[in-house]
Amino acid sequence: MKVGILGYGNLGKGVESAIRQNDDMELSCIITRRDPKSITPATEGVEVYSVEDIEKLQDKIDVLVLCGGSATDLPEQTPEYAKYFNVIDSFDTHARIPEHFANVDRVAKENGHVALISCGWDPGMFSLMRLYGASVLPEGQDYTFWGKGVSQGHSDAIRRVEGVKNGKQYTIPVEEALEAVRKGENPQLTTRQKHTRECFIVPEEGADLAKIEETIKTMPNYFADYDTTVHFISQEEFDANHAGIPHGGFVFRTGVTGLNKEHKHVIEYSLKLDSNPEFTSSVILSFARAINRLSEEGVSGCKTVFDIAPAYLSPMSGDELRAKML
Amino acid sequence: MKVGILGYGNLGKGVESAIRQNDDMELSCIITRRDPKSITPATEGVEVYSVEDIEKLQDKIDVLVLCGGSATDLPEQTPEYAKYFNVIDSFDTHARIPEHFANVDRVAKENGHVALISCGWDPGMFSLMRLYGASVLPEGQDYTFWGKGVSQGHSDAIRRVEGVKNGKQYTIPVEEALEAVRKGENPQLTTRQKHTRECFIVPEEGADLAKIEETIKTMPNYFADYDTTVHFISQEEFDANHAGIPHGGFVFRTGVTGLNKEHKHVIEYSLKLDSNPEFTSSVILSFARAINRLSEEGVSGCKTVFDIAPAYLSPMSGDELRAKML
Repeated sequence: MKVGILGYGNLGKGVESAIRQNDDMELSCIITRRDPKSITPATEGVEVYSVEDIEKLQDKIDVLVLCGGSATDLPEQTPEYAKYFNVIDSFDTHARIPEHFANVDRVAKENGHVALISCGWDPGMFSLMRLYGASVLPEGQDYTFWGKGVSQGHSDAIRRVEGVKNGKQYTIPVEEALEAVRKGENPQLTTRQKHTRECFIVPEEGADLAKIEETIKTMPNYFADYDTTVHFISQEEFDANHAGIPHGGFVFRTGVTGLNKEHKHVIEYSLKLDSNPEFTSSVILSFARAINRLSEEGVSGCKTVFDIAPAYLSPMSGDELRAKML
Repeated sequence: MKVGILGYGNLGKGVESAIRQNDDMELSCIITRRDPKSITPATEGVEVYSVEDIEKLQDKIDVLVLCGGSATDLPEQTPEYAKYFNVIDSFDTHARIPEHFANVDRVAKENGHVALISCGWDPGMFSLMRLYGASVLPEGQDYTFWGKGVSQGHSDAIRRVEGVKNGKQYTIPVEEALEAVRKGENPQLTTRQKHTRECFIVPEEGADLAKIEETIKTMPNYFADYDTTVHFISQEEFDANHAGIPHGGFVFRTGVTGLNKEHKHVIEYSLKLDSNPEFTSSVILSFARAINRLSEEGVSGCKTVFDIAPAYLSPMSGDELRAKML
């Protein structure tokens, strides 16, 4: 299975390294909006093309992985490139998924391709857990917690504050809230009760630290509704301890069964990820395998993780899966 | 969707109560090998039939849930009743799944029905977690732990020991083993290092307690390879504290990503269940919904949880799922 990568940022690099862990896949090419000469792939010998030549690459690619951002790239790219390829993206603006789905579905069907949108871990694996949980325990409640991990959006926000040279923000689930859910107490939790936010800031020389802290803690939407801690550190400490992009989180489904609803059940799914983009890439590749198979079966249109029978994700045959995994 | 139940034990009763939690389902009838008059369903007005009349019930049932045991009932029943109905079972003898699958698949295809075998939580939800985990982290390791919960087979074994009036056995995962896995240490664990076993025994009057304890702890296959604790208690204490059938467990997938495999990831799925048969029943019903849909689409043959796209489990439409769950 020949995989193409569009966009060679953190996610594209994650896909590149994950392909090496899947024996049935090969990296066909990298496609970029930048000057192809400016890109040096980690994989020796792999070709880099300009996005302007993308239409010519149809024979080289079974599935194209779109590694752009959800704000402006993917709403354009996914429908556009579903004309030429089976495509998969990690579109994560939850509120706009129905619209994105409709746009991609139309083009994919018209052109006989399979597309899969919103793949990764949330949306993605966490969505699957919400769906399985709600289906098997119809009388119950969902909880999703994120972290401990780096929020890219919040890190960007603190770096825009005056006097901030560098910064990183960690989202942290509140331990007491996790415990209450785990015990099946079905707590009603406010935003503040679910997560705290911790910021590590490298200030510019002579910056007003008190003002930076105040600006961050009162920032609407991003921080005002949370208990936020701000730490000022040196660039050296930043480089030593905050270079990674870890993330993770928890999905719970709690519910009751029995004639008198007398029995409680708690389902908990959690991820602890050293590298958010690499794990996302790994999930994407398993679903890329699935849509390649669906395409070979003659299926077309837009799919999500909900539409994929799990057996399609694995390189093993049905016989092997039943013998080893069931 | 009209659901029939064959076998009115713990599992059948669990299915009966779970149907009430699913608005799109109704309990059509209960079928039994006993005298139908000996059964009093919890649901008023529901009809009870003898298994001898089962062929006449085809119009009354969309999916028949087989609630027999894996040792002798299901290997006969599932292929037999796949002649007349869409059927679902909880066959859990892992080693015999390929053979059972082949038997059921042949009959289901010949008769245009959909069957789903080995549904519940292990096999079932845990199998799904092993498959998703291995697919998204191909370089890694699986761990499955069971408990804390009641093992029916081990409880049966201790009740057969001379001098034992009543008994229950709990399987308990070893906390240190869980912690080592959770930290991504990839431990190699022996049987003894993974689980302990705890027995609560009501002895017969005048029984030789030391001999009972010795017999249990040295019982081959069941206890000899484990650290086992035996407690002697009164029937009153047994009734007060050990009447339930709780269970649960953990599935982990740990793995690495990155060009130099420098990033670790830990996926953990756990269940804490007050009632093993009721949770199993709830899982079965969501998959019963799925096979009813597949049947309406004209599909036939034997399936497992691996073959079911998650969207089929939910009463929600694709649009709703994408808007609310993704």
